[in-house]
Amino acid sequence: MKRTVLSTILVVLAGSVLQLAGSPAQGAPPKSGKIRHVVLFKFKDDATAEQIKTIEDAFRALPSKIPQVIGFEWGTNQSPEHLAQGFTHCYLLTFRNQADRDAYLRHPAHKAFGKLLGPHLDKVLVVDYAPGD
Amino acid sequence: MKRTVLSTILVVLAGSVLQLAGSPAQGAPPKSGKIRHVVLFKFKDDATAEQIKTIEDAFRALPSKIPQVIGFEWGTNQSPEHLAQGFTHCYLLTFRNQADRDAYLRHPAHKAFGKLLGPHLDKVLVVDYAPGD
Repeated sequence: MKRTVLSTILVVLAGSVLQLAGSPAQGAPPKSGKIRHVVLFKFKDDATAEQIKTIEDAFRALPSKIPQVIGFEWGTNQSPEHLAQGFTHCYLLTFRNQADRDAYLRHPAHKAFGKLLGPHLDKVLVVDYAPGD
Repeated sequence: MKRTVLSTILVVLAGSVLQLAGSPAQGAPPKSGKIRHVVLFKFKDDATAEQIKTIEDAFRALPSKIPQVIGFEWGTNQSPEHLAQGFTHCYLLTFRNQADRDAYLRHPAHKAFGKLLGPHLDKVLVVDYAPGD
């Protein structure tokens, strides 16, 4: 009986491994409803390193304040192709579905971040997509 | 003894689940060297649905031709924020490191895709980043 239980757990775990290994970032079919939220920033020329760091930290804190954010990563541009149109910061947020993305957009913590960001922002670009391979 | 073997496999599998669940898209620390390659397209107004479909299919075929692409997903913009600056298509490619990204950029299959794309492209934006949380 114990072996049966262990085997069952094993099969379930193996299934989880396959499912996770096949996440959209690895080229598997789209998960139902998942939304990727891509955000690009170009800061004003007079934004100081300290001001930019404050904004970076504030954005990084949003997932701890807004539970609908199930994935968060970011980095600064390092493309050698010179096609970034001045954008320096790229953020990739993931939501379970459109409703969670909408809840994020109207969340007070997101609004507060926008107020912090606004004075230092030259331009912003946002694209959301439902990931498929 | 069999139970020990099963338990060992179980622990290894559980470890894999945790590792995969903690991939950068889920907010874990950056993996050494990994590069995300974000590509946005806006097609010319006179590009037909058929021409756009041909380009979409050609881009989707690149991972099968260029082994350095370890992650590929894409979708069309569905952001309600009206901040996409006309871009309609978003692609997210993942490479193990900068060297693999560079190999992709100079790969003949990538160059051929560029030639197919060019005549129908209004504008393109590319940002690469090393994902951190």
